[in-house]
Amino acid sequence: MKWSNFFIPTMKEIPIGTEAVSHQLLLRAGLVHMLTSGVYSYLPLGLRVLRRVEGIIREEMNAIGANELFLPCLHPMELWKQTGRDEVLADVMIRFRDKRKRDMCLGPTHEEVITNLVKDFIRSYRQLPTVLYQIQTKFRDELRTRFGIVRACEFIMKDAYSFDRDKEGLKKNYDLMYGAYKKIFDRCGLETVVLEADSGVMGGDVSHEYMVPAPIGEDAIITCDSCGNQTGANATYASGKICPKCKKGKLFSQVAIELGHIFQLGTKYSAAQEALFLDEDGKQRPIIMGCYGIGVSRVIAAIIEKHNDDKGIKWPKEVAPFDVEILPVPGADDNTEINELTDRYDRELVGLGMEVLVDDRQESAGRKFNDADLVGIPLRLTIGKRNLAQGNVEIKIRASSEVITVEKGSAVRKIKELAGTAVCAAKN
Amino acid sequence: MKWSNFFIPTMKEIPIGTEAVSHQLLLRAGLVHMLTSGVYSYLPLGLRVLRRVEGIIREEMNAIGANELFLPCLHPMELWKQTGRDEVLADVMIRFRDKRKRDMCLGPTHEEVITNLVKDFIRSYRQLPTVLYQIQTKFRDELRTRFGIVRACEFIMKDAYSFDRDKEGLKKNYDLMYGAYKKIFDRCGLETVVLEADSGVMGGDVSHEYMVPAPIGEDAIITCDSCGNQTGANATYASGKICPKCKKGKLFSQVAIELGHIFQLGTKYSAAQEALFLDEDGKQRPIIMGCYGIGVSRVIAAIIEKHNDDKGIKWPKEVAPFDVEILPVPGADDNTEINELTDRYDRELVGLGMEVLVDDRQESAGRKFNDADLVGIPLRLTIGKRNLAQGNVEIKIRASSEVITVEKGSAVRKIKELAGTAVCAAKN
Repeated sequence: MKWSNFFIPTMKEIPIGTEAVSHQLLLRAGLVHMLTSGVYSYLPLGLRVLRRVEGIIREEMNAIGANELFLPCLHPMELWKQTGRDEVLADVMIRFRDKRKRDMCLGPTHEEVITNLVKDFIRSYRQLPTVLYQIQTKFRDELRTRFGIVRACEFIMKDAYSFDRDKEGLKKNYDLMYGAYKKIFDRCGLETVVLEADSGVMGGDVSHEYMVPAPIGEDAIITCDSCGNQTGANATYASGKICPKCKKGKLFSQVAIELGHIFQLGTKYSAAQEALFLDEDGKQRPIIMGCYGIGVSRVIAAIIEKHNDDKGIKWPKEVAPFDVEILPVPGADDNTEINELTDRYDRELVGLGMEVLVDDRQESAGRKFNDADLVGIPLRLTIGKRNLAQGNVEIKIRASSEVITVEKGSAVRKIKELAGTAVCAAKN
Repeated sequence: MKWSNFFIPTMKEIPIGTEAVSHQLLLRAGLVHMLTSGVYSYLPLGLRVLRRVEGIIREEMNAIGANELFLPCLHPMELWKQTGRDEVLADVMIRFRDKRKRDMCLGPTHEEVITNLVKDFIRSYRQLPTVLYQIQTKFRDELRTRFGIVRACEFIMKDAYSFDRDKEGLKKNYDLMYGAYKKIFDRCGLETVVLEADSGVMGGDVSHEYMVPAPIGEDAIITCDSCGNQTGANATYASGKICPKCKKGKLFSQVAIELGHIFQLGTKYSAAQEALFLDEDGKQRPIIMGCYGIGVSRVIAAIIEKHNDDKGIKWPKEVAPFDVEILPVPGADDNTEINELTDRYDRELVGLGMEVLVDDRQESAGRKFNDADLVGIPLRLTIGKRNLAQGNVEIKIRASSEVITVEKGSAVRKIKELAGTAVCAAKN
């Protein structure tokens, strides 16, 4: 992809009214655009990151046997009344009455809708277990939107739902999700702390949240310096979970962002909505459910928050919008060799299955280097006069700032080797 | 993919309250589920078709240099007031006031939002032309929803927007889109009639619509039996376009569905929203725009409408949810060979890059054959006792109902050959 044919509106200045580094970099690197506060567009480069994060999530969901579907944004309020969550979530629900005088809302989450769907199809224990998920836009009427795409009115979530005949089945699916979540965040370059949590408005007994310590968080992780036990701030204050265990330890607190939350729901929704199945003994029982969410937009903000320096973003390999940026620096004289090498590297790297961005713009070398650091593609291949005079080109690894000078004929091989290492590292 | 691990809730009966064949088959083949009238979920099989149609659209959009982005569903009404379309589209707009007392609506289309976005970034003729597109959910408050996903309250569209410095640029982008649209519909197995059309609420002078004759349509194509000229019903009645040309010809009319519509907008939006650029001569001018829509959900309904028989769907190769279905028919005795062949074919076909569905359910052969015809995967590989006794298996081509008996060792080669032909046919 040539930069001149790709819409990447970078900006030098820090946008006014932004406090979080990730929010600033999302705007400066041309990843998102604010329509109104709490409502963002993904620009082409940002959409590429979104698609890669979604791709990782899909791979890990499919790997544990979950099936993807796509549920609507528009929900009839009568469904929400069945569980009483029309009132519990009233504060954040966007509601309207349509032309047919139906009371509707924009889905802030999809437990009621998926339960309604499954109820129409699942009748027997032989159809269980089933695990369904989607990646879809959610809506919340937030009074205080914050940190760009972190706390927004419109955001993207992955939500999965498990349906089982008994608690053992639920426990098994819950454990599979637990592991899949770890893998997803690891592949995104995020070290998460998993905490037992309060089930809140979702319901059920057991739940865990996946937190990443970061200043864009609105939660806190409390750690005991004696026993190392950790818990979320809400859980700590609510139940005093840590303190009774280790009376000597001091507690310290870190600000953290919640990226995922998994719940053993039990029968809260299936009982209220009458999603029943016929068990082997001929008895009708409510389906045992679990639900499992990941804030996809938030994951992107958290990745940037954890992978940046004063020059810009340092994308982890698996979520980078491109794998390699080729940066030719043409001079005043004959640029035939630079142009030929640019085309050749582009062709050969694409041939290896890599996503390549070529900065072919007629901009100063300084501007191009700054933009490259800002946009943060993991590997940069610079083709300039001075190095070429020695038969060399330069590779910069964005994550470590390491610069390697290689013979021009071995550049593609070296990049393949570096990209491979990065992929492996990200997958561990 | 094993059928027993994949959520495909087929049904034998024609669902009540459905008039269109495509609507019936969408429900019966387990592709969609109705949440409330005009609001549908895509089930896993339907989502696979959706993704393939989206994939074709993306390929053809990217091929003409368009960049994909993702715009929000929530729009501030103040944007719509700038163009006066808050009133023009008032009838179908879903509106609400949020907690901050902002008047908002759910986007029925995105001209205002994209113009607002481009205005923030494009300042100079050097940044033009630019073509942006998205695949996103749209909302319309429809009083009379019809034909399932054809006229719905929530539906998926591809909308593209071109930005040029002059009319020649617009014309060029319009011609590129015109050609890309033909390719997209061809690849989806749809023969479209392209008609000059009224620009309606979009504005601008020139527009074309892509129609497919089908009973789910709400438009009509008028053809003159003498000169062969064609026009849309609205255009005919509005301007009497055909009749003056050929006074002898009789007109006949076909019901048709509009799948795409492209518009040379000019400066309607850029002037109203002050999306200006500095031209080479230093003068500020409004950007010249075009917009280009495809009703993605509608395309799926139209494909089914055109490719079915009394047994079910006959998916064209490029949009089929799977390429091959393997249908083992185990007997009462030893099924070792059937099971081994099933696994081997699955592995080998997947190895060739094909998407394979294995009907491993413990259902009667009759049920499995009926479901296979209903779900309509292009190629079916049946492994049964009687044929195996002769060392053979059976391949059925769903489109033509042709059945081919092949030696079990050459089944994979034959399927590869048939799939290849189908792909080529679809691409012509």
